[in-house]
Amino acid sequence: MSEFVARDKEFESRVRKSFELQTLMSTIGARMTKVFPGEVEIELPYRRDLCQQNGYLHAGIATAIVDTACGYAALSLMPAGFGVLTVEYKANFVAPAIGDLFIARAVVKKAGRTLSVCSGDVVAVKKDEEKLVATMLTTMMALRNS
Amino acid sequence: MSEFVARDKEFESRVRKSFELQTLMSTIGARMTKVFPGEVEIELPYRRDLCQQNGYLHAGIATAIVDTACGYAALSLMPAGFGVLTVEYKANFVAPAIGDLFIARAVVKKAGRTLSVCSGDVVAVKKDEEKLVATMLTTMMALRNS
Amino acid sequence: MSEFVARDKEFESRVRKSFELQTLMSTIGARMTKVFPGEVEIELPYRRDLCQQNGYLHAGIATAIVDTACGYAALSLMPAGFGVLTVEYKANFVAPAIGDLFIARAVVKKAGRTLSVCSGDVVAVKKDEEKLVATMLTTMMALRNS
Amino acid sequence: MSEFVARDKEFESRVRKSFELQTLMSTIGARMTKVFPGEVEIELPYRRDLCQQNGYLHAGIATAIVDTACGYAALSLMPAGFGVLTVEYKANFVAPAIGDLFIARAVVKKAGRTLSVCSGDVVAVKKDEEKLVATMLTTMMALRNS
Repeated sequence: MSEFVARDKEFESRVRKSFELQTLMSTIGARMTKVFPGEVEIELPYRRDLCQQNGYLHAGIATAIVDTACGYAALSLMPAGFGVLTVEYKANFVAPAIGDLFIARAVVKKAGRTLSVCSGDVVAVKKDEEKLVATMLTTMMALRNS
Repeated sequence: MSEFVARDKEFESRVRKSFELQTLMSTIGARMTKVFPGEVEIELPYRRDLCQQNGYLHAGIATAIVDTACGYAALSLMPAGFGVLTVEYKANFVAPAIGDLFIARAVVKKAGRTLSVCSGDVVAVKKDEEKLVATMLTTMMALRNS
Repeated sequence: MSEFVARDKEFESRVRKSFELQTLMSTIGARMTKVFPGEVEIELPYRRDLCQQNGYLHAGIATAIVDTACGYAALSLMPAGFGVLTVEYKANFVAPAIGDLFIARAVVKKAGRTLSVCSGDVVAVKKDEEKLVATMLTTMMALRNS
Repeated sequence: MSEFVARDKEFESRVRKSFELQTLMSTIGARMTKVFPGEVEIELPYRRDLCQQNGYLHAGIATAIVDTACGYAALSLMPAGFGVLTVEYKANFVAPAIGDLFIARAVVKKAGRTLSVCSGDVVAVKKDEEKLVATMLTTMMALRNS
């Protein structure tokens, strides 16, 4: 599925353990649904208390799930003993974030020793149809665990 | 304070009413503390349930408050009868988001008829000292209320 | 090849005519090699006088060709009577831009009435091998010709 | 003028020597007009052969001068023995780039050991009046000279 090979055989458990530590993800009800080398997927059911003024999912929450997916996509390719930090991101919001479920899908575009570049999309799902609502391009940094 | 003049005298109440409709802002405990023509400030006390894996405020939440501040800074300069939508943003995270309180400050850099460009910073406050943790550059769009 | 359908049958000649007006493109020696609905490709042979301090192609020139490709990918889907303007872009530089030839490939991710979102890559070609050197995410605006 | 202190007393000559190596800058006729710790200014007289389809300065060229100014603003604060590379940037184009002269002004927002964040503006000058045409937010990387 992915063209990448993980350098750490334990990459999935390492990614999932770190995700469990993200209190925001449980606060908003997000689940990590896929972890492959260089690819991560996170799902978030729509909730009325996470919205902007029109009842759409707030851009910051769409950003939070796709940023998290991008970060862990990058981490999945790093050697053991490293953590990941978001250096920066850019996101475009291309349609109102309205639907029953949101899926953030992230892939690594370039895995570097220090910096990795990832891209990710957020789609809204309604009656089994997916619609692109946001797209992100981001830089992640590897940090040796202290 | 601001170099801008609002075209709608009711800009502050219009901005504050829209902010009240953002359920995410009350969910996370954010308050709108300043509304001037072309300038908005939002505060968020630190909460342990809004964090990433190291206990820092999640980038998505820092983004949510500064995006919201930027959007309302843009809206404050729009004529009555218009709403605002985030087209896109880019944010850099320059220091760990750790502190007792976070303040997002946004200003309009260019107010256009359709598109406005805003910039915003997020500082972390600890013992009355402020530290820059994130900075954003964003494009906002005016939408006639239907 | 492309999933898009052009609304203007003359899209290719319209795009190529506009490209011919870009004096920068002829100054640097860039050629438009492909124009499909929603997809454009531009090639630039390496030149020693377009470089940064290490002899790599300058980021601004890599940006110029992929911005131009993105803009015309967006224009290819617009109705007759419209022109295109770059609202903003973000680019990551993932490897030194060194090679005999650079190819910028752009696709439309979301075609809107006013705003379109495009993504594009720049690859460096050396001995028939391609290497990704830059990737862009951008917002383009449709402007009615006056 | 600047709040920064250079760690390398020779920062100005180091920056100017590197700028001299950028062949693109002499190709387009750009001059480095100011070098302070954490601040750099570059000027470019308008030239008809650097334009997009409407006769405005091409976004890629506006980007090239402000990227270069940002990079050298970052380099001015780095210790001796380091060079600088652009990791990524985002730029907004807020008005047509038309004028007799363009000035790119860059400042460091956060100087880090590995990564620095800079912002920069490009103004167009016409009859001694300045108008903002583009604004950039960028990440620069320090690289030890080999």
